[in-house]
Amino acid sequence: MTDRAVVLLSGGLDSATCLAMARAAGYDCHALAFAYGQRHAAELQAAERVAASLGAASFRVLSLGLGDIGGSALTDTAIDVPDDGGEGIPVTYVPARNTVFLSLALGFAEVLDASAIYIGVNAVDYSGYPDCRPAFIEAFQALADLATRAGVEGHGPVIKAPLLTLSKSAIVAAGTELGVDYAQTVSCYQADADGRACGRCDSCRLRQRGFADAGLADPTRYQG
Amino acid sequence: MTDRAVVLLSGGLDSATCLAMARAAGYDCHALAFAYGQRHAAELQAAERVAASLGAASFRVLSLGLGDIGGSALTDTAIDVPDDGGEGIPVTYVPARNTVFLSLALGFAEVLDASAIYIGVNAVDYSGYPDCRPAFIEAFQALADLATRAGVEGHGPVIKAPLLTLSKSAIVAAGTELGVDYAQTVSCYQADADGRACGRCDSCRLRQRGFADAGLADPTRYQG
Repeated sequence: MTDRAVVLLSGGLDSATCLAMARAAGYDCHALAFAYGQRHAAELQAAERVAASLGAASFRVLSLGLGDIGGSALTDTAIDVPDDGGEGIPVTYVPARNTVFLSLALGFAEVLDASAIYIGVNAVDYSGYPDCRPAFIEAFQALADLATRAGVEGHGPVIKAPLLTLSKSAIVAAGTELGVDYAQTVSCYQADADGRACGRCDSCRLRQRGFADAGLADPTRYQG
Repeated sequence: MTDRAVVLLSGGLDSATCLAMARAAGYDCHALAFAYGQRHAAELQAAERVAASLGAASFRVLSLGLGDIGGSALTDTAIDVPDDGGEGIPVTYVPARNTVFLSLALGFAEVLDASAIYIGVNAVDYSGYPDCRPAFIEAFQALADLATRAGVEGHGPVIKAPLLTLSKSAIVAAGTELGVDYAQTVSCYQADADGRACGRCDSCRLRQRGFADAGLADPTRYQG
């Protein structure tokens, strides 16, 4: 049997690249996305398109009531998304998000008997999110080695974060090489219903700079 | 300001005892329960009753689509709950459940600026669940110290598992001393709509033995 991997897929640029890398490594890829009170469904539609076009074996959306615990501009409509993140941790931070997403991926990996979990976190352009650091991934690996049935025997699925030390331009260069169609992906924090980007938010700026630095045309669909 | 704690509350005997202990330790307690595709809502109603009677500052139910990833008799109605758990890990195991619940509690703790998270796991009567072991709690503490805003400064909320090394009889003795009304709690895997227990499943047997060993009358409401 081909080894299985659970791939966390957001519909954004990073996780699409991650899925392409997992496929290139030979895994049967089971994509997992989350509906957690985002303001728009465009990114979930993008995730589904990306999963299909990159040959994922399955695509699932898991519902999660993160909005109930509040605390972030991404899930709380009472907080405006700033154009400029400013200093420190941005208000677009969702509390413990990667911990929660990896935990659910761990449960899914156990059910599938998957040997790897892919997550598209990135420490270089990480915008101050504490759960995008290498030490965080290492700590989650230690937890995964204890937390599940496989953990009784002292090992869990391998947590793969292949983008961890890559710049945004290196990520888009690698993904383009692997055939990712970035026009399908949505990174913008305030994309419209068709998934078209605002071109002004933190996430849009990082993405634009990535394509520019890689010397690639920006395929992103913008509003207006 | 009084220190805050997030307390994971299932409506069962262990987590009710945990809440009483957190209150006795002086915390403002914010109770967090999960709706994750259980077959009956009785345990959530029990959790709400317990939160009110033990003076929790708030009670929240977070929805979680765990049923979508399958793999357990507790969330998959196609699998029968066995009367006898047998050897090894029981089929009532929910994949990575405590990892998922602690992760969400960690997010909630960050929003509340809580300094502790209480979880009623128990290694003595743990029925073979890998995520009820002391090493698992230690690994989660290491993760919590890295994963959040507080983690940027190298510390997170303290993970408190006060029942970890207690027998079931020591738990009910301690809770009775602290005023827990165990008739409000539901431990049974197949309780009816009114929260009355079957008296036969693994969870019921452990609970019955706990009261018997503690020399206390069993206040559980049984079916029929």
